[in-house]
Amino acid sequence: FINAERLLGRLRELGQIGRDGDGRLVRLAGSDADKAGRDAFVSWIRAAGLDIAVDRIGNIFGIWKDRANVDEAPVLLGSHIDSVINAGIYDGCYGVLSGLEAIETLKAAGYAPARPIAVAAFTNEEGVRYAPDMMGSLVYAGGLPVKEALATVGTDGTVLGAELERIGYAGFEEPGFLKPHAYVELHIEQGPILEREGVPIGAVENLQGISWQRVTIDGDANHAGTTPMSMRRDAGHAAARIVTFLRDRARNSNAPTVATVGCMNFEPNAINVIPSRAALTVDLRDPDEQRLQAEEAALAAYLRELAAAEEVTISVERLARFEPVAFDRRIVELVEDAARKRGLASKRMTSGAGHDAQMIARIAPSAMIFVPSIGGISHNPREHTPDADLVAGANILLDVAARLAAQ
Amino acid sequence: FINAERLLGRLRELGQIGRDGDGRLVRLAGSDADKAGRDAFVSWIRAAGLDIAVDRIGNIFGIWKDRANVDEAPVLLGSHIDSVINAGIYDGCYGVLSGLEAIETLKAAGYAPARPIAVAAFTNEEGVRYAPDMMGSLVYAGGLPVKEALATVGTDGTVLGAELERIGYAGFEEPGFLKPHAYVELHIEQGPILEREGVPIGAVENLQGISWQRVTIDGDANHAGTTPMSMRRDAGHAAARIVTFLRDRARNSNAPTVATVGCMNFEPNAINVIPSRAALTVDLRDPDEQRLQAEEAALAAYLRELAAAEEVTISVERLARFEPVAFDRRIVELVEDAARKRGLASKRMTSGAGHDAQMIARIAPSAMIFVPSIGGISHNPREHTPDADLVAGANILLDVAARLAAQ
Ligand SMILES: NC(=O)NCCC(=O)O
Ligand SMILES: NC(=O)NCCC(=O)O
Repeated sequence: FINAERLLGRLRELGQIGRDGDGRLVRLAGSDADKAGRDAFVSWIRAAGLDIAVDRIGNIFGIWKDRANVDEAPVLLGSHIDSVINAGIYDGCYGVLSGLEAIETLKAAGYAPARPIAVAAFTNEEGVRYAPDMMGSLVYAGGLPVKEALATVGTDGTVLGAELERIGYAGFEEPGFLKPHAYVELHIEQGPILEREGVPIGAVENLQGISWQRVTIDGDANHAGTTPMSMRRDAGHAAARIVTFLRDRARNSNAPTVATVGCMNFEPNAINVIPSRAALTVDLRDPDEQRLQAEEAALAAYLRELAAAEEVTISVERLARFEPVAFDRRIVELVEDAARKRGLASKRMTSGAGHDAQMIARIAPSAMIFVPSIGGISHNPREHTPDADLVAGANILLDVAARLAAQ
Repeated sequence: FINAERLLGRLRELGQIGRDGDGRLVRLAGSDADKAGRDAFVSWIRAAGLDIAVDRIGNIFGIWKDRANVDEAPVLLGSHIDSVINAGIYDGCYGVLSGLEAIETLKAAGYAPARPIAVAAFTNEEGVRYAPDMMGSLVYAGGLPVKEALATVGTDGTVLGAELERIGYAGFEEPGFLKPHAYVELHIEQGPILEREGVPIGAVENLQGISWQRVTIDGDANHAGTTPMSMRRDAGHAAARIVTFLRDRARNSNAPTVATVGCMNFEPNAINVIPSRAALTVDLRDPDEQRLQAEEAALAAYLRELAAAEEVTISVERLARFEPVAFDRRIVELVEDAARKRGLASKRMTSGAGHDAQMIARIAPSAMIFVPSIGGISHNPREHTPDADLVAGANILLDVAARLAAQ
């Protein structure tokens, strides 16, 4: 059994790091708040007596190995500790701290695994400041050159590589330096299913595809009082049409497609000036790649129509595109088996959110474990999972890690 | 005849004051750029040998009086020199500098008016940083207590009174200290009518009503990937519905109502977070007060429906509300007469934009003179009026001022 008090205590402690002036948790990748969170994690890795490594994209590793198993590929546990704006305390941190907790528990119990076990905190999983999301694990898996990732310009004009240097987490290891034997990520569900069905453990067998785009509309600024409705080239109005188009299409379909416009900015953003420019983001997701492509095509066709009808110019930039991923059957079964042995119900499910496991699945057999999110709420300070569920999930991670490292 | 070179030269000089790093003209009320513009205007008043006065709300006056007419109520000319974001160079400045030009011309010609003639630059006409718009003239006309106006908090969190003190334009005169005999404001049309009809002079007989509101929508932040479409309380989506509702209603009506959403802000404004809050501005205008009220009521009813349907909370704050104004018939006829005598076609028309004349009409007979705006473009750096039209308009102002001051 993991040490519940230690795990929950660290989770709460980390959850207080990176509060802004309004008390909101904002620990964006590469920020001072991120540095403070990283420093706490590193101090706990050190306290656990593990080796510490940081790679060039800032991924942090705590590695438990001994002379007997040092040549074997490690079992990797992990997630991320960066957050969205006004975040909850569980998203990512729960998986990272539970990974560390599993290692400490096994170590203290005198367990002698056949393979090293390591825990990772991947850089910039959220993608809020720098796109794409899951960047640290994507680079680690070889899906994006480290140089290109480090050159990413953020929503605030900063460059990720410079920010990592500034906060002291531009490491020396080459991303991918540890080739995992297997990867397991424990995470809160962030959706409503487990709570609604009263099931404490999700055995995550796949993860939906993610398409992120930025749409920029150029119209013409003019006077709000003197410009007849028929003579306007209103970029803000065209932006609003895109929001309602996406919403209506996703709502009226039977498919599980979700569509979100999270960012919206008008220029000049003045009360009596027709917007000359509007920029918005589109987040489209679907577990089925064909359907995701069809939704992207439908949006593209609508944008062409809209540009013609409203006499505006519309340009689209791709921010992220990940196909749906199927996880490793054997690890999914290990999760179900561990739940059964602990007398916990489990359910095979799809992840609605993107996760580092999605990237690491490119280089190692991977899977995820979910625990319930009360009300399905996440990316919100009211994100919550009861302590008993948190502890149960961490114990399943412990069991699966021990099984994977046994041979 | 006014001195065309002097007028056009000053207009261009003032148009270069307040350029931001991107070369955009941004001379918002109370800013450093506004101070620089005011300083230039004051130096020109001084050069013309006029008395200078500044009132508590920062309105600047250049007054031409002599021992013979000092006890008479003055003819007041004027407009404003604050600007929107990324403005053109004519809006407001043209009327202020032409007023000064008319006085200088009459003075140099040895004209001895029966009344003083004064020129005013009213504070914060645009209302972009501090609402309501036309604030300086509104206070001057007694429509808003000066203390309340000075306490206005801007879009950037600053307080107007503190900004006026900071830039040295919190004057000592009580607003209203000069009670005008008549007020005449020369302005670019900012709309397409005069150019389209090939008429150089607009005799503005009325001005439409203006309703400004800020609408704030509170929904619930949640994860863009895991939250089913049916479980969302998406503040951004509700905001977009308001934009399309207003647009469709105004477009599909035969009335001249115009509706504009110029400002839009999402929170937390992150790509993978459903917006918890959206705030937008609504600018509604109509020459008919009944119809303007009906439009406001229709919006209010729609917001109630929308709040229920989308399970969001919607609150509305009034930022400005001005009824339509009818200008003084006699001055309108003087404008037409002056145009006729100079061989220029004129047209009676309605002003789509708000103007200081709308406020001063509360305390003195008032009217306006318009000149064409190429393409009807304003609140845009491409705002333009040909030099010949600018000069013609200033000469009409000269003639009307002379006539009004003659007795
Ligand atoms: N788990 C999680 O919130 N990931 C962030 C990336 C995304 O799914 O938007
Ligand atoms: N003339 C002018 O642009 N006034 C600003 C106030 C408004 O009409 O929005």
